[in-house]
Amino acid sequence: MKICSWAKSLLPIATLILTSSISFSQMAPSSETFVNNLMPQPASLQASSGGFVLNAQFHAVTTHFNDPRLDDAIHRAILQLRQKTALPLSVEPVAAGTEAPLTIDVQGAGEAVQSVDENEAYTLSVTPAGAHIEAATVVGAMHGLETLVQLVQPSGSDYILPIVSIHDSPRFPWRGLMIDCGRHFEPMDVLKRTIDGMAAVKLNVFHWHLTEDQGFRIESKLYPRLTGVGSDGLFYTQQDARDLVAYARARGIRVVPEFEMPGHSTAWQYAYPKLSSGTPPPAVRRDFGVSDYALDPTREETYQFIARFLGEMATIFPDPYMHIGGDETPAPDWKTNPRIIAFMKAHNLKDNGALQAYFNTRVLKILTGLHKHMVGWDEILNPALPKDIVIQSWRGEASLTQGAQQGYQGILSAPYYLDGMKSAGTHYLADPLPSSSSLTPEQRKLVLGGEICMWGEQIDAGTIDSRNWPRTAAIAERFWSPEDVTNVDDMYRRLNVVSIQLEGLGLQHITQEDAYLRDLAGTQDIDQLRIFASAFEPVSFGERYHQQKTSQLTVLDRFVDAVRPDPPSRYEVAHLTENFLKSPQSDTADAAALTQWFEAVSNSVPTVENQMQHSPRLAEAQERAQQLPGLAKAATDAIHFLSSGTKAPAGWKASTTAQIEAAKKPSAVVRFVFIDSLTSLVNAVQE
Amino acid sequence: MKICSWAKSLLPIATLILTSSISFSQMAPSSETFVNNLMPQPASLQASSGGFVLNAQFHAVTTHFNDPRLDDAIHRAILQLRQKTALPLSVEPVAAGTEAPLTIDVQGAGEAVQSVDENEAYTLSVTPAGAHIEAATVVGAMHGLETLVQLVQPSGSDYILPIVSIHDSPRFPWRGLMIDCGRHFEPMDVLKRTIDGMAAVKLNVFHWHLTEDQGFRIESKLYPRLTGVGSDGLFYTQQDARDLVAYARARGIRVVPEFEMPGHSTAWQYAYPKLSSGTPPPAVRRDFGVSDYALDPTREETYQFIARFLGEMATIFPDPYMHIGGDETPAPDWKTNPRIIAFMKAHNLKDNGALQAYFNTRVLKILTGLHKHMVGWDEILNPALPKDIVIQSWRGEASLTQGAQQGYQGILSAPYYLDGMKSAGTHYLADPLPSSSSLTPEQRKLVLGGEICMWGEQIDAGTIDSRNWPRTAAIAERFWSPEDVTNVDDMYRRLNVVSIQLEGLGLQHITQEDAYLRDLAGTQDIDQLRIFASAFEPVSFGERYHQQKTSQLTVLDRFVDAVRPDPPSRYEVAHLTENFLKSPQSDTADAAALTQWFEAVSNSVPTVENQMQHSPRLAEAQERAQQLPGLAKAATDAIHFLSSGTKAPAGWKASTTAQIEAAKKPSAVVRFVFIDSLTSLVNAVQE
Repeated sequence: MKICSWAKSLLPIATLILTSSISFSQMAPSSETFVNNLMPQPASLQASSGGFVLNAQFHAVTTHFNDPRLDDAIHRAILQLRQKTALPLSVEPVAAGTEAPLTIDVQGAGEAVQSVDENEAYTLSVTPAGAHIEAATVVGAMHGLETLVQLVQPSGSDYILPIVSIHDSPRFPWRGLMIDCGRHFEPMDVLKRTIDGMAAVKLNVFHWHLTEDQGFRIESKLYPRLTGVGSDGLFYTQQDARDLVAYARARGIRVVPEFEMPGHSTAWQYAYPKLSSGTPPPAVRRDFGVSDYALDPTREETYQFIARFLGEMATIFPDPYMHIGGDETPAPDWKTNPRIIAFMKAHNLKDNGALQAYFNTRVLKILTGLHKHMVGWDEILNPALPKDIVIQSWRGEASLTQGAQQGYQGILSAPYYLDGMKSAGTHYLADPLPSSSSLTPEQRKLVLGGEICMWGEQIDAGTIDSRNWPRTAAIAERFWSPEDVTNVDDMYRRLNVVSIQLEGLGLQHITQEDAYLRDLAGTQDIDQLRIFASAFEPVSFGERYHQQKTSQLTVLDRFVDAVRPDPPSRYEVAHLTENFLKSPQSDTADAAALTQWFEAVSNSVPTVENQMQHSPRLAEAQERAQQLPGLAKAATDAIHFLSSGTKAPAGWKASTTAQIEAAKKPSAVVRFVFIDSLTSLVNAVQE
Repeated sequence: MKICSWAKSLLPIATLILTSSISFSQMAPSSETFVNNLMPQPASLQASSGGFVLNAQFHAVTTHFNDPRLDDAIHRAILQLRQKTALPLSVEPVAAGTEAPLTIDVQGAGEAVQSVDENEAYTLSVTPAGAHIEAATVVGAMHGLETLVQLVQPSGSDYILPIVSIHDSPRFPWRGLMIDCGRHFEPMDVLKRTIDGMAAVKLNVFHWHLTEDQGFRIESKLYPRLTGVGSDGLFYTQQDARDLVAYARARGIRVVPEFEMPGHSTAWQYAYPKLSSGTPPPAVRRDFGVSDYALDPTREETYQFIARFLGEMATIFPDPYMHIGGDETPAPDWKTNPRIIAFMKAHNLKDNGALQAYFNTRVLKILTGLHKHMVGWDEILNPALPKDIVIQSWRGEASLTQGAQQGYQGILSAPYYLDGMKSAGTHYLADPLPSSSSLTPEQRKLVLGGEICMWGEQIDAGTIDSRNWPRTAAIAERFWSPEDVTNVDDMYRRLNVVSIQLEGLGLQHITQEDAYLRDLAGTQDIDQLRIFASAFEPVSFGERYHQQKTSQLTVLDRFVDAVRPDPPSRYEVAHLTENFLKSPQSDTADAAALTQWFEAVSNSVPTVENQMQHSPRLAEAQERAQQLPGLAKAATDAIHFLSSGTKAPAGWKASTTAQIEAAKKPSAVVRFVFIDSLTSLVNAVQE
């Protein structure tokens, strides 16, 4: 096959066309309409009614090239199809060349180490006779298989693949998820299921934040004290890391490791005090926030250490990119240590920024010797550094633009911080490279894509899934799909579907809430508590840090840890409210649904308050339980006034607004999911 | 310390005494009554009101002996206490000898390889000043720590350890759980969390069924085709096995591996056809049931193979016991293969039983050379074998008794088959050695204990937890606690508590049901489906095998796989019914609760039927959905007749009974959890 021009285009135009004119065989039930549940949406899709019926004989053959990686991907897809359909599909390999319901035509393996330029395009066509995937590389075929799995839909008593023709390729070549395993260690099985989820939504970079003030998480055989002393015994062995790299490669995902320097390095310095710029740290840090400890950029021994360490890491991580962090390095010692002051004077380095640029230049030389490209956070951007470094922007789009204008490649992360506990819709609408951008076409090419960031201060193995998912899937679509795919309502509809698919892969983002609620209440009877909890979501990382003074010792098993960011209830209430407010006096269905929901959460309170009597941990949300009935009453009153076209009694708006303002004040480090909707309802009432 | 006589007694008398006379300091809130949630119940417990208040300074020191295994156990207990209390307890080690709220006095490490004679006794006392654990061995201390964790209870806004004095030791030294990883492979993380759960309820033998007709699951470096050809690529490496042995030892659990021979060995023979007694198998078996393929017991090469293989396994599994299976070997080839017939004649072996005894004698010699004791299923019992083998009885208590009378040690398994899908209460009341047993005191000592069995035909990684737990906890109590601890109602009360503790350890026995229901319905809106599902449980292994012809290819993601055996609803309805029937005309509370439940399950049906329209898999339960409202109506009608003391109209009982009989017929391989309760209600009605 040939990869057509669309496949490498950076900005394909979405063509979502539904036709019903194409004929199909009797095998395909004609009554079914294609339901587009795909996430991310493909670059181009044509669908017809009808479909190919799956049966127990369904299997795949590769018609041209195959290798163990492709075979494994097919095997995984078959397992997912089994799970979706309950058909006893055989996972035994089938000889190439045989006729089959699914044929897969791949040109070749792709690059030995998956590259940022890897051809990820594929075509997928389903006809009444079967399905066919074409791709230049195994990675492209994997994306096609993921799309195939998402296409399966019920039809009468069967499952079908709807008749479609899909031409697909990603908008951005770098589509990442960063997991901070420094502040809280995440076990290997958590990382593996995270990678499974990433593959399902076509992300392709796992950015592994491996070192932090609070823990050094990757084994060095050259410097065993890095984990031996610089962690709490929780770290990845080199074998673990190699396993994860292989696991990710098998799923079309690159692993970019990050070793933070010269800041965020308390753990390095506690293990090897000679690396320190001043007084070495007395312990691995338990507190969060920016640390004053920084590596000493003036000693040759520092660079010898880094060179040997990165050389060792290069044997584990084959990706051509290595991330050196580089952010948040106030390094007060650099301003006071006489030796460092003298060094700066001797090298004509006017301030800390210049000294860090010097440091980065030295590290870059090491990386270049290892045939690695440097990636770093905003702060590494400095004219002293050449143009082949990549800037990961955590400060915002402006800084990404600024970098591109200076000729630096960039990755946008600022709008994709999951620990900000924002809604999927908010993240979804943040475009890494909007068409309105002032960048020139050449500069636009420097924007490689985006990365979702999950910082680890307030997550652990028990809560990470519900913080990562399903929001990550929505952002993955932003990185993959055409710019004009921006319908938030349709995104949420599909997000509910992909969320269940992700759960089937082993992710615990949905189950975790109930498990924590049972643990909090000490009972399996959580029907009312579940309803109560649906009224809340966690506050942002910053608010929790401020209100609760979290540290690495904080136990993450409170009510705030049980509830999910942007739970389905938040969007549903917002959506119903928006609809209702369009025509409040005629929209009785939305009024009824809203009223029912507010009454249900209010009615849950007595049972929950009773459970709080027996659970000091749950009782943390006591004030929230006291506030909820009043707020729910305000909502149902507002709906009543608006539906009936009556005015509220004098003073009602003022007192209700006061109530809402009180509810916005910190309590139990959670917020009401409906506060914006309630505000809209109250504002719409006439008094 | 000295281990008192109670500690080694096989049959301690339970002394559950609640006193309120003991004085305590002001630290301890006097208003709290001790709530006994312990599972298993200790041999002896005295409790007083009041407790020791846990705070952030809580930590443990070892006052006498300690080693890394004990330190790890303390570390795990602290992590569990953190989770229960949200207190930021430090997990940093504390120097021995310091004063501490928890002191742990252990005599020594115990045996280098945990033995069946290991001293597992401990004492635990909590006073207003703190807690103290004494034990002869680290294993004993681990049990004490597990009890300590289970003791934590809320008190006002605090968590306390209630004032208790516990003297505890197990009734039986062999308390096992067998997992069949042959028919379906179980990933390492499943096994590890299973072991975590076992430790929480003081089980001490993980019996690892590693080879089956359907798959050979343990790597042999000497015979790589065993897994290379004899599995579907899913097996444990030797390193995995060593890791699991270490993981189990760290939790006071022995690992007894099982290598099935001479039957249940299709996988061996497919890999090494020369081992076969006749025509070698054409493939690894996908079907279940007894297989005709058996190892050839007449060739010296067979024994050389077994000797080398078991020798290799002995380097991985240090336990002094090795299980050789030995069950279900019809071996028709032994009756027809001329060479085998000639061999039997030459050795004066009259039938297959004699030939298998010969085989076992030869294997026993190999094991003896490896310093291993032989364990096998009932069928190995043969006078030709010496008395130092252990018989695991799957045929029933009679066969255990028979073995003991002949001088053989035994382990009872027959009443503890979890795949029979019986209730926890049923398993709970089956005693391995009832006081009514006819065995002499010497013979009684030969009954080492019991083993729970989870056969793998119809479970996989996604469903194993809900089939194992929490029922396993109830049986664990049977193996540990005094014979007279038999209150089923109190067991269920405590089982609900321990079930949440087990979930906190990572077990997915509760979450799995909801996840499968979401997957089946294709939506997160499963409030009604969850209520509907609470009316069902899976049928037994045998019934499902018969009705559905399950094989290794059967996809285990049906409605039957979602619902749990013996769900809380079953016991609740049964308990309410039993209470109600005691005084139906005055017991309005139970009548109301029952009526409410039956109405709720009935009301769930329209929503569920609507979801079935969009899910062929869920639609499998369509007939059950049609039956449910009628049965629920019969129940509420019966309650109405009984409450009001009125007679049912003529013909009501006959038609209702016919309805119940129809509902007992196979459908969707599930059964109604309330069918016995409903029958009791209907039978009680006057007509």
